[in-house]
Amino acid sequence: MNHSLTADLSEAVEEELRRAVQQADGSGLAEFRHMLAYHLGWEGDGAGAEARGKRIRPLLVLLTNAAAGCDWRRALPAAAAVELVHNFSLIHDDIQDNSPLRRGRPTVWKQWGIPQAINSGDAMLTLAHLVLLRLSETSPAEVALQAMQILQSACLHLTQGQFLDLLYEARGDLTLDAYWPMVNGKTAALLAACTELGALTANASPAKCRAYHQFGHDLGLAFQALDDILGIWGDAALTGKSAESDLLAGKKSLPVLFGLSQNGPFARRWQQGPIQPEETGPLAAQLEAVGARAYAQEAATRLTDQALQALSEAGPRGEAGEALIALALQLLDRQG
Amino acid sequence: MNHSLTADLSEAVEEELRRAVQQADGSGLAEFRHMLAYHLGWEGDGAGAEARGKRIRPLLVLLTNAAAGCDWRRALPAAAAVELVHNFSLIHDDIQDNSPLRRGRPTVWKQWGIPQAINSGDAMLTLAHLVLLRLSETSPAEVALQAMQILQSACLHLTQGQFLDLLYEARGDLTLDAYWPMVNGKTAALLAACTELGALTANASPAKCRAYHQFGHDLGLAFQALDDILGIWGDAALTGKSAESDLLAGKKSLPVLFGLSQNGPFARRWQQGPIQPEETGPLAAQLEAVGARAYAQEAATRLTDQALQALSEAGPRGEAGEALIALALQLLDRQG
Repeated sequence: MNHSLTADLSEAVEEELRRAVQQADGSGLAEFRHMLAYHLGWEGDGAGAEARGKRIRPLLVLLTNAAAGCDWRRALPAAAAVELVHNFSLIHDDIQDNSPLRRGRPTVWKQWGIPQAINSGDAMLTLAHLVLLRLSETSPAEVALQAMQILQSACLHLTQGQFLDLLYEARGDLTLDAYWPMVNGKTAALLAACTELGALTANASPAKCRAYHQFGHDLGLAFQALDDILGIWGDAALTGKSAESDLLAGKKSLPVLFGLSQNGPFARRWQQGPIQPEETGPLAAQLEAVGARAYAQEAATRLTDQALQALSEAGPRGEAGEALIALALQLLDRQG
Repeated sequence: MNHSLTADLSEAVEEELRRAVQQADGSGLAEFRHMLAYHLGWEGDGAGAEARGKRIRPLLVLLTNAAAGCDWRRALPAAAAVELVHNFSLIHDDIQDNSPLRRGRPTVWKQWGIPQAINSGDAMLTLAHLVLLRLSETSPAEVALQAMQILQSACLHLTQGQFLDLLYEARGDLTLDAYWPMVNGKTAALLAACTELGALTANASPAKCRAYHQFGHDLGLAFQALDDILGIWGDAALTGKSAESDLLAGKKSLPVLFGLSQNGPFARRWQQGPIQPEETGPLAAQLEAVGARAYAQEAATRLTDQALQALSEAGPRGEAGEALIALALQLLDRQG
């Protein structure tokens, strides 16, 4: 990946995000804006690059836009919008999952209480839509409206996926079929919106927009399957930091759902109640023995191939095209 | 008010709302859609006219639109959108205020838990934006984009007002200055958006759009001041149902803030902790004696005059114009 290009992009994204969040400010509202700036990693204890997260979604928008032949600056409102939507969902997720930490810092609800955290998430979502409207300054009104439709559809999918995720928490009778609709909503829909928005704002043909959409979608699914594997067999999950194992969190990930579908010792243990830290190693080995890891890896490989195939059909060009491919490979090969 | 016109409008609003909510449905998502339909008063125990609420905001949109000379059907997406935004804020408000009941029924969080209720509110907000995009089917893209800007700005004001409201809960040192920015965000901004959206979709001139916006805004402030008076001196607050007194809820309403500003016995009692049911009568009398009721009534009268003046400048026409004036008077004279 060309570091000076992605560095330029990242800097411009932060600037567009700051400009968007500035709209929340006003007389007596400094703390309101600060809560959003805190969550985005700009302010408060522990602010900095790590607290900001990787900003993968806006990079996907801008690299797609440039790889489709446009000046990426035109897509900046869309890039900021998807990052704000992502962060809206994180603020609400953290409340819903009762998570005290996010990127190593106290979550918004931990700092300001649940009522203000709900409201901060609502504001973050609203700012996402407001910044997206800035597209109409540089694109035809029809394009801005299409962009709005794409982002809103992704938001609806997000809430649908979240509904399923919350519903599954209470259920022990899930099958593998339950997995894809949830992950489609929670991960793939927004990544698909990223690449589609990048292509749309580049004035790409409908066919090219579809190919980029497919790329983002499959990339999201592949990423999630790989993330699920790392959540059980990754270094952090297996060694020392067992608190990071998805088994402890009770997450209904792809290997776990595969394991449950086997109705063997793993399924029986899972249904008895929360997994303890000392069990994560043996249970991970048990899951691997029944083929859960191979199953998830196979799905990830298939989806990765599909994603790269769709990207190849989209025909990304130039330096940005190379950077886009590199970003995808980086996301899909996080063990290296 | 012409009953056959408003009956037609109300029926069309329900249909547009149902169509919007239907978008939430999908395989495995029947319960997700049901949560939204429950909150909107269509399904579940106690469903019916009372559970639906008054749908004042969509009526304001449609009557304004027709009074500005348009076929109100064109404004239906905007009418549904403002009602969905209002209901999104109610679902989240109920969590934030820990309210077990809404319109006589258990709130969404009481029925499905806080995580699912947060997500339902998020979905309701998203559906609002999706239905608003339908404006582009009957209006130019530029108009649809302007409508989106108006609604999003109102949403941002909503979250700003909610931030202040939540912030004030913990504070005993508030002055009268604290009141208007909060009420502006929580009530007036969305009502102003209603009337402005009605005028915009009727292709009204910018001056007329501004006048209608001002009408909605002042109507919202007047309505809130009157609601605050009823919350302390209304029949429900004073007789029998003392649980409905704003004094018990600790609400920072206009008369209370006036009372606090007097630094007298009321302020001293307020700062000592929660008001008990048997105190509501005497404290209401105390507040009235220091002039809090007269102060709030004066503000309400001034704002009502301003609202009607703005409406007169907007020049509403025909049967819808009369119905709009009647609706405003009905909202502003709820003791009759």
